[in-house]
Amino acid sequence: MVAGIRTPKPVQEMANEMPELYQQLVELRNKLEQHYQEIQDYEYTIEKGTLYCLQTRNGKMNAQALVRTSVEMVAEGLIDREQALLRVNPEVLDQLLHPSLDPGYSAQPVAQGLPASPGAASGKVMFDAYRAELFRRAGEAVILVREETKPEDIHGFFASQGILTSRGGKTSHAAVVARGMGKPCVAGAEGIEVDTRQRLARIGKILVHEGDTITIDGGNGNVYLGEIPTVTPEFSGELKTLLQWADEVARLKVMTNVDTPEAAARAVEYGAMGIGLCRTERMFNAQDRLPIVVDMILASTREARQEVLERLLPIQRADFKALFKVMAPRTVTIRLLDPPIHEFLPSERQLETELVRLKQLRNTVEGVGDLMGALQLLPGKTARDISPTTPFDENGVELIDEVIAKKELMLLKVRELFEINPMLGHRGVRLGITYPEIYAMQIRAVLEATAECVKEGLTVHPEIMVPQVCTAEELVRVREVVVETQQAVEQEHGIKLNFLFGTMIEVVRACMRAGKLAEVAEFFSFGTNDLTQSTFSFSREDAENKFLPFYNENHILQDNPFEVLDVKGVGELMHLAVEWGRQSRPDLKVGICGEQGGHPASIRFCHDAGLSYVSCSPPRVPIARLAAAQAALLSAATK
Amino acid sequence: MVAGIRTPKPVQEMANEMPELYQQLVELRNKLEQHYQEIQDYEYTIEKGTLYCLQTRNGKMNAQALVRTSVEMVAEGLIDREQALLRVNPEVLDQLLHPSLDPGYSAQPVAQGLPASPGAASGKVMFDAYRAELFRRAGEAVILVREETKPEDIHGFFASQGILTSRGGKTSHAAVVARGMGKPCVAGAEGIEVDTRQRLARIGKILVHEGDTITIDGGNGNVYLGEIPTVTPEFSGELKTLLQWADEVARLKVMTNVDTPEAAARAVEYGAMGIGLCRTERMFNAQDRLPIVVDMILASTREARQEVLERLLPIQRADFKALFKVMAPRTVTIRLLDPPIHEFLPSERQLETELVRLKQLRNTVEGVGDLMGALQLLPGKTARDISPTTPFDENGVELIDEVIAKKELMLLKVRELFEINPMLGHRGVRLGITYPEIYAMQIRAVLEATAECVKEGLTVHPEIMVPQVCTAEELVRVREVVVETQQAVEQEHGIKLNFLFGTMIEVVRACMRAGKLAEVAEFFSFGTNDLTQSTFSFSREDAENKFLPFYNENHILQDNPFEVLDVKGVGELMHLAVEWGRQSRPDLKVGICGEQGGHPASIRFCHDAGLSYVSCSPPRVPIARLAAAQAALLSAATK
Repeated sequence: MVAGIRTPKPVQEMANEMPELYQQLVELRNKLEQHYQEIQDYEYTIEKGTLYCLQTRNGKMNAQALVRTSVEMVAEGLIDREQALLRVNPEVLDQLLHPSLDPGYSAQPVAQGLPASPGAASGKVMFDAYRAELFRRAGEAVILVREETKPEDIHGFFASQGILTSRGGKTSHAAVVARGMGKPCVAGAEGIEVDTRQRLARIGKILVHEGDTITIDGGNGNVYLGEIPTVTPEFSGELKTLLQWADEVARLKVMTNVDTPEAAARAVEYGAMGIGLCRTERMFNAQDRLPIVVDMILASTREARQEVLERLLPIQRADFKALFKVMAPRTVTIRLLDPPIHEFLPSERQLETELVRLKQLRNTVEGVGDLMGALQLLPGKTARDISPTTPFDENGVELIDEVIAKKELMLLKVRELFEINPMLGHRGVRLGITYPEIYAMQIRAVLEATAECVKEGLTVHPEIMVPQVCTAEELVRVREVVVETQQAVEQEHGIKLNFLFGTMIEVVRACMRAGKLAEVAEFFSFGTNDLTQSTFSFSREDAENKFLPFYNENHILQDNPFEVLDVKGVGELMHLAVEWGRQSRPDLKVGICGEQGGHPASIRFCHDAGLSYVSCSPPRVPIARLAAAQAALLSAATK
Repeated sequence: MVAGIRTPKPVQEMANEMPELYQQLVELRNKLEQHYQEIQDYEYTIEKGTLYCLQTRNGKMNAQALVRTSVEMVAEGLIDREQALLRVNPEVLDQLLHPSLDPGYSAQPVAQGLPASPGAASGKVMFDAYRAELFRRAGEAVILVREETKPEDIHGFFASQGILTSRGGKTSHAAVVARGMGKPCVAGAEGIEVDTRQRLARIGKILVHEGDTITIDGGNGNVYLGEIPTVTPEFSGELKTLLQWADEVARLKVMTNVDTPEAAARAVEYGAMGIGLCRTERMFNAQDRLPIVVDMILASTREARQEVLERLLPIQRADFKALFKVMAPRTVTIRLLDPPIHEFLPSERQLETELVRLKQLRNTVEGVGDLMGALQLLPGKTARDISPTTPFDENGVELIDEVIAKKELMLLKVRELFEINPMLGHRGVRLGITYPEIYAMQIRAVLEATAECVKEGLTVHPEIMVPQVCTAEELVRVREVVVETQQAVEQEHGIKLNFLFGTMIEVVRACMRAGKLAEVAEFFSFGTNDLTQSTFSFSREDAENKFLPFYNENHILQDNPFEVLDVKGVGELMHLAVEWGRQSRPDLKVGICGEQGGHPASIRFCHDAGLSYVSCSPPRVPIARLAAAQAALLSAATK
């Protein structure tokens, strides 16, 4: 047996063949497991009618087995619930939450990138978001393949089963958005050369054309030709039980970062206790809103901007209402607009290229697909205005001229809005202060949605959160708008509104001024992505593409601080902010919504720092729930 | 008299006409000045042989009068030295240090920009640095006029009397460099449209051609056509006396931020007690080094880079030696390379444009001036290789081809080095860690220059300062190179070297880790420009061009934190860093070398925070000396 030279028989047959020895074996097994309180992988021999135990060790188990045995061992009274909770490394739960390639099927990858968002998916290759959407509507499974993605590709993410990029790291736009949506993503597969114009990709000598099927595995970064079967994980009864126990033990609440009702529903299934971060800019990026947002940006007067914002108001209100409904009665924290507005416009270079193409297009009467994309920019015009099968008529050319004029305006605006360091630029509350009508619209949308839900009998707990705050005066100004709007909406609807008003803590100065901020804010939410950037003076994308890997490999920094919270620097600032904030407002609610909020080591820190909640992407919610329980248990043990 | 309807006589005539009343008047004046301890502006009348004093008030004085009367009043025993020191607002000294327009001459400005660097200057308009240098060599006074300046324009600054830009704020490249050099600068004169290709500027309907004379006044931002006479200030005996008293009273030392021997000599005249910040990148930018620096950047292997660095070593060594000689026996603090290396390359767009032009040029055999500029890129080739008067020969075309090939390489490199947020990118010690040979060359240059000076009998006090440090391990790695080089140089020269090794504190995390850093660093120097950027998450150029003026006008922030140190946020971090740093190393020397170091309010803060020195640009040294004395006096008074 041990030497592997005989074909083994099932152990059950021993019960018939050698009933007495079998009984001894069962007793041995029980004794070993009782002693080690772990499933045992043991070796034995039977020589001349005597059972000898040769060796024993803890059994190696995959995630599913680990969870099942933990719950079963509690049922058998071998271990208690706390022991069961401590037995499972939270990170292994990741295996249980994403489809994976059928292990019975072997295939050779043709390329490899970074495992940027877990899970496996197959679909037809599409090289732009518009065509991804077109094919999705026709019922096809699609993999979006881009050199890198931009905010305007967002509708392509929705339409796709998975995302593959040839450039960018684990924190590239593609990776972050895909993780947020829980879709598989392979990023930075540098062996793939994407040629969007010709709608093909080159992988060495292999040509992959639009419509060809590929499979990506976001768990290891592999890319395969053709469709490879996947197996879908089940959220087992045992896992549910284990996580219920976790929730009973944990002090930290686990919230989630989502911005669509679909993602919210999934997060609730995973046990999210509320939304800790709803990024409203994702709503601005959706395909039906982006043209309106572009109009808002192009507006040259406050009045013109106001007019466009009135078109956005009902859309945002419906967005929030849908979220509230899914989440009721849980908390929904809505962050007001954060990114610099130039992020909603294409790049200067892209616009220049598009303008050249559009001008050619106008004459050559070709490329219906491109035109369809361009048309999305004109409110009220859709792809249906031109039949894809009919050659251009005069109406078509007029439409192109309209698009050209608009793109030229956009180009001027892009140049005007150019920033040297956009991460530290005109964004967040700075936008809200200089263009108060944008925040006013969003605040009204939140409060009106709340009022409508309340009238429908729902219990909703909205929270309004202001990003990039550096001084209490900024919060005071935004609160003025909130109070004014609250009074108006309460009067209009004849009801009282209950909600909280709070701030992100993601600017270093906000930590230093936490005492003052807490006089205005009812809650703090640490945005540890940005806070880490400004504490280290590391721009995340630049650092991860340039010097950070070198720093980690050479032990100048032990971890990537964008993955594991930097306790000594960022953590120290957080400690100060919590202490000073609670001096002003003892019941201050404090959470974290940066990406580190879903990582066990950071969760332990958050527990010890006295935070009220962590908020992470839906697939990390189960991991965070278990980690929060372990933090409570381990913290109590070391006290 | 009071009504202004009679022409007054000189008051001395009264001594003859009414000797008794004149005696009374003198007594009255002495009594008033003794009482108010200020020069008095008083009114009197004589009616029927009686002198009546109608009213008196403190006299309004310009800077020169204020300084003179202060020193004289001490000599007369009216006030003591402390009172004299407190009597003069340090900011008014600014008037005494720069040439100003002859007040007897009146002219109408044709444009106005921001007063970015004080002083007035006239000269012939030149639209690029190369032509500025050409005309300067021909003995012309030049005003460099650009849309905005870039590091590669640095030789144009040296060649010019003053700088005028049509874009950018008080902290644009042009403004900062001009202030550092003490040259007048008017920045962001938006009414001027600069057309570099046509070598002319449009101011409304006025056309200003290359070679036309203009005058700029950096004190108020005015731009005039033609030459307006200027008056040069004198550093009066009284001012020297007052500042000597100041130095005796002040606890803070006043150092200066310079990087050339000329500026250093001027700073010493102004009373600088050492160099607190020598930016070595300015040396990299000088016209004779930039081509070598470009070669270093283009080097694809460590060996190739090493080879280029060996060409830079003697140049840097000579740079440092020249500085040491001027400053001996004062401290010279040398900051190792700080900016991201792409700053030494032109922009992508500029290179693309230049390549198009060069390719045209190659065929059209025109534009000798442009070619001369391009030639600077080829080491060993200078403008003299082609006579500006001779049409191109084949040799010329070959040279252009060489330039084109090089620029194409540069373009590739620029694209590779692109960063999204360069302020938070691959710069400072991060460069020093990933390309250790660059810092090794600089460290060797410093130590060899020191050894040579010592052998020449000079007493020198060099300090090596590391920028952008976020963790002690970075300092440890650089110190290893320092120690290794020290041993080698000491052996080669057979002497012992004395110097300090320290760090900039300009990254927030450096403040939080100050205790650890002080175990390695012998001194701290707060880089409050960068520290302010990362504490606020404000990119300075973006903030000042976009939302910061709005924030100041609307009292969301009281001051521009890049001009006046933000005591509540940045200052709080500095307090923590000083406290934690001195816990590890009680005799830690701590200074500030950000631009705020020259501003009285910030100097008061630095005094109270227990700093050892402030460092500022040469023209602000006298201001800082007086402010440091006032800080000591006022701080003692409030204790």
